[in-house]
Amino acid sequence: MKVKLLNKPTLEFVDNGIGQCYDKGCYANEEKKLNRINRVANVNKHGSVLEFEEAIFEITASTKVLLEMTRHRHASYACKSSRYTIDKGDIVFEDTGNNDVNGMLENFRQVIINAQNKGYSNDVISLMLPQAYQYRWIVKMNYRSLQNFLSLRTDKHSHFHIREVANEMFKQLPDEHKFLFKDCINEK
Amino acid sequence: MKVKLLNKPTLEFVDNGIGQCYDKGCYANEEKKLNRINRVANVNKHGSVLEFEEAIFEITASTKVLLEMTRHRHASYACKSSRYTIDKGDIVFEDTGNNDVNGMLENFRQVIINAQNKGYSNDVISLMLPQAYQYRWIVKMNYRSLQNFLSLRTDKHSHFHIREVANEMFKQLPDEHKFLFKDCINEK
Amino acid sequence: MKVKLLNKPTLEFVDNGIGQCYDKGCYANEEKKLNRINRVANVNKHGSVLEFEEAIFEITASTKVLLEMTRHRHASYACKSSRYTIDKGDIVFEDTGNNDVNGMLENFRQVIINAQNKGYSNDVISLMLPQAYQYRWIVKMNYRSLQNFLSLRTDKHSHFHIREVANEMFKQLPDEHKFLFKDCINEK
Amino acid sequence: MKVKLLNKPTLEFVDNGIGQCYDKGCYANEEKKLNRINRVANVNKHGSVLEFEEAIFEITASTKVLLEMTRHRHASYACKSSRYTIDKGDIVFEDTGNNDVNGMLENFRQVIINAQNKGYSNDVISLMLPQAYQYRWIVKMNYRSLQNFLSLRTDKHSHFHIREVANEMFKQLPDEHKFLFKDCINEK
Repeated sequence: MKVKLLNKPTLEFVDNGIGQCYDKGCYANEEKKLNRINRVANVNKHGSVLEFEEAIFEITASTKVLLEMTRHRHASYACKSSRYTIDKGDIVFEDTGNNDVNGMLENFRQVIINAQNKGYSNDVISLMLPQAYQYRWIVKMNYRSLQNFLSLRTDKHSHFHIREVANEMFKQLPDEHKFLFKDCINEK
Repeated sequence: MKVKLLNKPTLEFVDNGIGQCYDKGCYANEEKKLNRINRVANVNKHGSVLEFEEAIFEITASTKVLLEMTRHRHASYACKSSRYTIDKGDIVFEDTGNNDVNGMLENFRQVIINAQNKGYSNDVISLMLPQAYQYRWIVKMNYRSLQNFLSLRTDKHSHFHIREVANEMFKQLPDEHKFLFKDCINEK
Repeated sequence: MKVKLLNKPTLEFVDNGIGQCYDKGCYANEEKKLNRINRVANVNKHGSVLEFEEAIFEITASTKVLLEMTRHRHASYACKSSRYTIDKGDIVFEDTGNNDVNGMLENFRQVIINAQNKGYSNDVISLMLPQAYQYRWIVKMNYRSLQNFLSLRTDKHSHFHIREVANEMFKQLPDEHKFLFKDCINEK
Repeated sequence: MKVKLLNKPTLEFVDNGIGQCYDKGCYANEEKKLNRINRVANVNKHGSVLEFEEAIFEITASTKVLLEMTRHRHASYACKSSRYTIDKGDIVFEDTGNNDVNGMLENFRQVIINAQNKGYSNDVISLMLPQAYQYRWIVKMNYRSLQNFLSLRTDKHSHFHIREVANEMFKQLPDEHKFLFKDCINEK
């Protein structure tokens, strides 16, 4: 599992959006700016201003995570297709946390590679890939959508793979933005 | 693979929406109604009026299809979770169209059932499920979104599993609505 | 102001969606069905199942209401265009609740009709229409989006015109569905 | 009418997204990068990669433009509320292109200011504001949504106010991005 924040989110346009609504412009003072954002977005629940900032992540994780993440529809995705990119040796599985199962999956992997060697098409081969199979994709979420994502996916009812990804996404956000998300994080 | 249209779509509210825009009310005459819908939605490309009708399908298909379908964000989904519902004997795989691979998958299935018998959690077991694994879900798409879905997913570049599902979805639509979608269908 | 529910919402597909998620089918027993929907959608906050039901309203209200309502993006709209449908005598204003202002608006109306009589185009005339001007449109919202709409727009911070419309939308919902929305209604 | 591009869009993450899909990384060579984006997004119609870039505009325009723009639901808005910000002397109308009508509107403006001086609430006063009334708002659209917006709103069937705004939005985009939008622009 690997998560990498690709862009450099600022709160410039969130502040701008708030200033617009109340016709009061932006704040030069950083503390006043953050206080106003906290008041409007968190306390007064006007989440729409948070749509003015986006985080873009590159994520390397299991099919399980991809399956759950794409259910979040307020986001943009670009995913490395297994159909065009499966190549011998390029079939990697994420750790299941269970050595016995990891071993079984290694056997699956050998069988899949054998099937590839027989020349079967990627469309057929991909049907053999287990949910531990590692995909890589880019996801863009605005901060409002990200709040919702982190609330749901750091919850203990979520699969441990997506919990790890969600927690890592939170960690990589700029420290000075974390006040917007800390109430969304469900500690184990 | 199984597709079942659950609701009974009419074009009543599409007609109503068009009548609203032009302040001309609805048509009692069926032929005039369909002609006007064709003119507005297909010829003049005012797709938004098609949002006033929805189709709701129950779909039983491979994980591959679920992965691709949920990328369509203008839709609502309710999916039988593998986490709560995997049970011994309930692990079914869709046909891959390749007997050799089907056989390999049958071996995978036995290994997965053995892992279940060892008492490993569903969260771990589900990581072993291949993309041939059969899910069941309900999807609701409005007619505008459905046009887009059928255009992309009946295309020969799509995986054969989702092409089959998309073609079956089209077949199950009311015959008198098919004129809205026939240009979206890419014959093999 | 006039609000008319056009369709006959049932909870059939909400129940179906819930049954799908937990692999337990639908309930024949009405009370059990409503209890389960309440538990899943309201108590456990799984709002996505509510996307499986829609309400379609015809609304006749001021431009003010249209301006605020279309900010709700999880909805479909078909609106009678002022550009094609303004006709002499067809310029109606909603009551402002202030007789003095109503009188001023009546003067505006005469000026607008005079401008029409001079043959100026509707594109120019429509720029004279005040926010009291009455539009008519159809809006479709799923129940999840409708919960959000009613929460925000029955609030005392909303303009009284949209509060009236929102309260009337709630009233017109089937009585047996109101338990889903009653916590969204902010009494004056 | 005033349009100001607030952010500095790059195509970095569009390129990144495309590289991701085909597992080929980003291009250092600017020409190759733009060629690939053109091929994928314009020629092959894979518009979803364009969601990875956003343009944020501050717009000062008539109520007419606001009414039509907010119908575009794939966008984020922050709008200066007329309810909180109407002040004496702050009521400005956009040019209607018709001097006679401009004169009538100036009379409306005096009547509205008189009503304000009588102490009537902003909720009542705002119902008097004509569609020429100038609002100011911020809008964020990703490049896919912006293509759709420009196609529809530079069309001769659009109101001349929104046509002007749409054409100005296009002009302010970085020159090296205009190849993505030039086919959307409908010259008069």
